[in-house]
Parts: sequence; C-alpha cells; structure tokens
Amino acid sequence: MRCLNLALAERSYPILIGNDLLQSAENLQPYLRGPRVAVISNTTVAPLYLSTVVTSLEKVGVGVTAIILPDGEKFKNWESLNAIYDGLLAARCDRGTTLIALGGGVIGDLAGFAAATYQRGVSFIQIPTTLLSQVDSSVGGKTGINHPRGKNMVGAFWQPKLVLADTRTLRSLPARELSAGLAEVIKYGLIRDLPFLEWLEANMDSLVGRDDDALAYAIERSCRNKAEVVADDEFETAKEGGRALLNLGHTFGHAIESGMGYGNWLHGEAVAAGTVMAAELSRRLGWLSEADVDRVRDILQRAGLPVCGPMLGAEQYLEFMSHDKKVVDGRMRLVLLKSIGSAVTTSDAEHADILATINACCHE
Amino acid sequence: MRCLNLALAERSYPILIGNDLLQSAENLQPYLRGPRVAVISNTTVAPLYLSTVVTSLEKVGVGVTAIILPDGEKFKNWESLNAIYDGLLAARCDRGTTLIALGGGVIGDLAGFAAATYQRGVSFIQIPTTLLSQVDSSVGGKTGINHPRGKNMVGAFWQPKLVLADTRTLRSLPARELSAGLAEVIKYGLIRDLPFLEWLEANMDSLVGRDDDALAYAIERSCRNKAEVVADDEFETAKEGGRALLNLGHTFGHAIESGMGYGNWLHGEAVAAGTVMAAELSRRLGWLSEADVDRVRDILQRAGLPVCGPMLGAEQYLEFMSHDKKVVDGRMRLVLLKSIGSAVTTSDAEHADILATINACCHE
Repeated sequence: MRCLNLALAERSYPILIGNDLLQSAENLQPYLRGPRVAVISNTTVAPLYLSTVVTSLEKVGVGVTAIILPDGEKFKNWESLNAIYDGLLAARCDRGTTLIALGGGVIGDLAGFAAATYQRGVSFIQIPTTLLSQVDSSVGGKTGINHPRGKNMVGAFWQPKLVLADTRTLRSLPARELSAGLAEVIKYGLIRDLPFLEWLEANMDSLVGRDDDALAYAIERSCRNKAEVVADDEFETAKEGGRALLNLGHTFGHAIESGMGYGNWLHGEAVAAGTVMAAELSRRLGWLSEADVDRVRDILQRAGLPVCGPMLGAEQYLEFMSHDKKVVDGRMRLVLLKSIGSAVTTSDAEHADILATINACCHE
Repeated sequence: MRCLNLALAERSYPILIGNDLLQSAENLQPYLRGPRVAVISNTTVAPLYLSTVVTSLEKVGVGVTAIILPDGEKFKNWESLNAIYDGLLAARCDRGTTLIALGGGVIGDLAGFAAATYQRGVSFIQIPTTLLSQVDSSVGGKTGINHPRGKNMVGAFWQPKLVLADTRTLRSLPARELSAGLAEVIKYGLIRDLPFLEWLEANMDSLVGRDDDALAYAIERSCRNKAEVVADDEFETAKEGGRALLNLGHTFGHAIESGMGYGNWLHGEAVAAGTVMAAELSRRLGWLSEADVDRVRDILQRAGLPVCGPMLGAEQYLEFMSHDKKVVDGRMRLVLLKSIGSAVTTSDAEHADILATINACCHE
C-alpha cells in the first residue's frame, strides 16, 4: 500500500493507494470522528462495492446509513444534495457523523459539498472508484453542484480526512472512462513532471492493461503533482500559474463539451483533444517543435484518447471558450506549454493563431 | 465611530459601529475585492435603506446588483438561497464580486451562506439593521438556511470582511424587536461580564429610548464579549464552555419557540423567559440566591421582555428541549449560572429540578 500525505496547513490528510483496501475497515477507522458514518454512493457503484464497505465497517462496530443517488453528471444538482440532507436528517445524523463518498467525481463533489454544509460542516472521507476521481478530485478540496445556469457554480472548499484509492475498483471501469482518467494523468507529466511523462511513455501499455502496480504508481505520482500545485495555491487565488496550470487543455476542452452537449464527450476525452490544441498553439508561439506536438499526440493516442476536436466551427469554439470561468477581465488566458514538462498561463496568443489552431486540430 | 477588530487567525475583520454610516461608501470601499457588489436585502429593509447604500456606492464607481427577498424566518430556505444564486448568475457576477447583507439575521444568514458557496466562496460584508443581528449574528461567522426537518441544518462558517452597524437603522425597528435584541445584550453581562451588567442596569432607560451613544457602547461591548468567546472556539468544538456558553436561556427558549410555533414568540423573547428559567434552576442547584434571580428578572423586564414562559406543560418542555441540537450523547447539557456574570455548561441538573423550574417559571 502506498501512502501520500497531503500537507495543507491545519487540514492535512493521507491518501492511501493499493489493492483491496475496501475490505479493511482498519484503514478507515482512525479517521472517523464518531461511531456513525453515512456512505453516499450511486446506483452503478453501490451494487459493486457498497456491501464490502458496509460489512467491514459494521464488523468494527460502526453504524452505517447508506444514501444511494442516481448516476450521472446531470444529477449533480440541488435535488441530489437535498436527498443527502434528507437521508442524514431522517437517520438523525449529528455533527459527529462522517460522510463517506463511494463513487466517481460526481459523488465526491456532492458528498463533499454535503459534508461542508451539513450542520455547518462534518467530517468527510473519499473512496474514489474511477481513475479520474482518484487522480483529480481526491486532491484539492473542491466540492459542489451544478446550477441550471452553469457548471460548478455552487460549492465550497472542503478537505477530506482521508482518501482511499483502491486500484481494484478500476477493474469494473469501462475502457473509455479509464482512458479519460489517463488524460489527466498525462497532463501532470506535460505541465510539470518530464520524468513522469517518460515513465508514462514506457508504461502506458501496463496502465491500459490495468496492472495494479502501474496504476498505483501513476495515481500516487499524479496526486503528488496535484498536491504540490494545490499546496501553493489552496484557494485558487494565484494571479499567474498556480492551480490554473491544472487546466491545460481545459479551455479548449470545455468548448468541446459545451459544443457537443455535456456527456457526449467525456471530460477527459475533451481535455485530450484540447491538450493537442494547446500543444499546437504553443508550437505556433515558437515554444514547442513539431516533434514535441507529435509526442503529445502519441502518448494521448496510446492511452486510447481522441486527439482531434469535433468540427464545431472556429467561431463557435471561440464563443464557448470565452464563457469559460477562467476568463479574467475579458481577456482569454490560456494554459500553454513553454516546453514539454513546463506549462505557463498566458494571454500572449493572438486571435489569428487560436483560429488557425482550431482549424488545424479539428476534423469532421 | 467605534471600531472593534475581530482577530480570527487569517480571517480578521473590523466591526464599525456608529451613526449614519450607510451614507459613506468610504467605510465600505477598502473592503471590496472588485468593482462590483451585490446587495441582498428584503422587502421591509430595502425601501428604508437600499437607495442610501446604492447611491453612496455608485458615487464611488461601484456597480451594484440588488437582490430583494421576502421578509421573514420562513423564507430562510433553499428557494431564497437559489434566488440569490439566480440573481448573481443573471448579473454575471464573478469571483471578484462582494456580497453585502443589508437586513437582520435572516438576511445575514442567507447572504453569508450564498457568499460561502457561490463559485466556492466570495467576499462578504454585513450591514445588520436590527439590534439582534448587530450584537449576535455579526460575530461568529455562522451562516445557513433552515431545512424542512430542522432549523439551521444546512450552512457554513464564513467570516465577513467587514461588519457595519449603523445605530440609526435601529430607529425604524419595532419596539418588540429592539427588546428582543436587548435579551442577547443582557446575556453577555450575565454569562461573563458583571461590570457590563452593572452598566446595563444604570443605562437601560437610554437603551430602550434608543440613545445612539448608549446603543453604540452596548453593541461594541456585546460584540467584544462574543468575539472573545468565538476566538477561543471558532468552530464550536470545545467540550466544556466555549461557544456553548452563548446559549444561556436558549435550550428552554427553543422549547418555547417550538411549542408556540416559530414566529409567535420572537427568539429574544423566548431567550429572555428561558434565561429566567436557567437562573431559577441555578438557584435550585445552590449557585444563585433568590436576590440573584430577581436581579435577572428585573433587568430583562426593564428591557421590555417577558420573564415567564408559556404553560406548555412540563413534559412537553422536556420533549422539545431534548430535540435541541446542543444535546450530546443523549444527556441534556444546559448552560447555567455559577454566579451572576459567570456561566458554565453542565449536566448536573436533575430531572426533578428541571421539572420544578418549568412549573415555577411558566404561567398561562
């Protein structure tokens, strides 16, 4: 079992990574505030793993309330959040209750926000069951729900007491979702960790083959990278660099997700195509070579990811990109690559270069 | 103008107290994060003070969005919170927007919780316009909404950047609400500040007569007392004493509010009658004399407050009291007085003494 300690001032917590961690309540027990937990899961994950978690907790005398929500990004809303509050209040959960998120990013965001706001804040543990949530949402403390007028518009920063990433849960993950998670893994190599990118180039086949050890290493190193970025900029207030660097490929990617209708492209798929666009635009600014861009495209492709965007029309891309939350004072700030392994936030890209990049990287 | 600095680690803020502070945007301007504010108010307060605040802000180039909610505790719910989110999103408010609460405790709780959760947290300024909110909710950072299954069940701790208490706004306050605020003022004297209680005994007529200087002094001293309690126990985690001491009279008071239906007794009125019960129970434990209990009753009465509870029946009191959030592990913990000016949290009171106290202090 790998253990990574996230150091965030008063709110530090460990991330445990390994095989078959769900069976052992001993991993959870030291982090429970009281003898009572509520497990929040969804209709896809609960049939696979809920009974394992509940049985192991009950064996050590912990009372469990299970709250099962429908599965999907479209349920990351007030109704689901209120279903959690209702379940907690019906079971008379008090401030000593610990909320456990068992599922992917949507469950983590919902349960985390419920934990941040139930009786003004209760303890929270994450058991992410997708690669994306293991390498992304388990670090950083972002929680929240969507609003009809915008994604993630309502939420809070709320750190878990523990994250438990069991690589065995990835065996049940559809291949497309595994690949989508790998897009974020590759991102950490590209923005700040060239040796990790080289490791990924050497081990991509093992990752796609769901080798437990390779996955555990990639998860740990991804979390470590994200943790270093987050520790420097916990509340996303840095003007340059900081957490914004984690958005490599995301502004182009959001345009793809919006343009195609949310859910048709997975977030990681859109980020992959967006990352190729960011690399191509970096080449046009003279920062990357053609060989660098090919290298970016190759590793994403080997992870089973799309490397071309859909042909929405360049103007429509720009329209969607300008709606991105990362636009500051009306200027489009993008995350680009100064070199492979080193990202920057910049407003340097000319309108014409962005248009040319979109046209070069999108196909029917 | 009086200025009190609240020292809470990284999140310190000033409380400005005085006459006619609303006119001067200079008081607000240094605490705005960007050139944009949203003022949250209600249909009672907005007609009185909104234009003063908006005009002064616009004069210094600040853009104002006003969001006006219906007035009353029953609107402290998800629908009102969502109306704030809708208003902020419709006006395209970004993370640099500052939310200003202009109203009493309900508006402060709603706007504060919206600030804690809009785009994962934006800046917040409180302009409390009732005595109760000036001396109570402006210190401590508690924000939230009610849930159909319980009061204040959903919320967050979120500190304002500034509190601006304008005593002039108290001139429009109904007499019952002024008295209800005085119940909390008197509480600070009783739980921890005997010299302040003596000052209140000497100056109660000026306070009831709404003398600006007397009110400003009482507000400052109340806030200072609450601030000292809160600074030691910001997140209400102390096992003994701590923020719990602020609940003198509140467990009995909650029973009155629940038993009579919320809104029929004002919170401060219920706390006043509950405070007399707490004093009487303290006498039965041998901690206070009969003269002490009379002293508590007299000062509350001079403030225009009820000093007897309604005759709900002792068993019904106990039933409502046991539903109070302050019950820990099933034992009824009460805040009682060791002496005038010194409160403690205790589980010492026998069932029979509590029953006798209720019977002694309640009338048709």
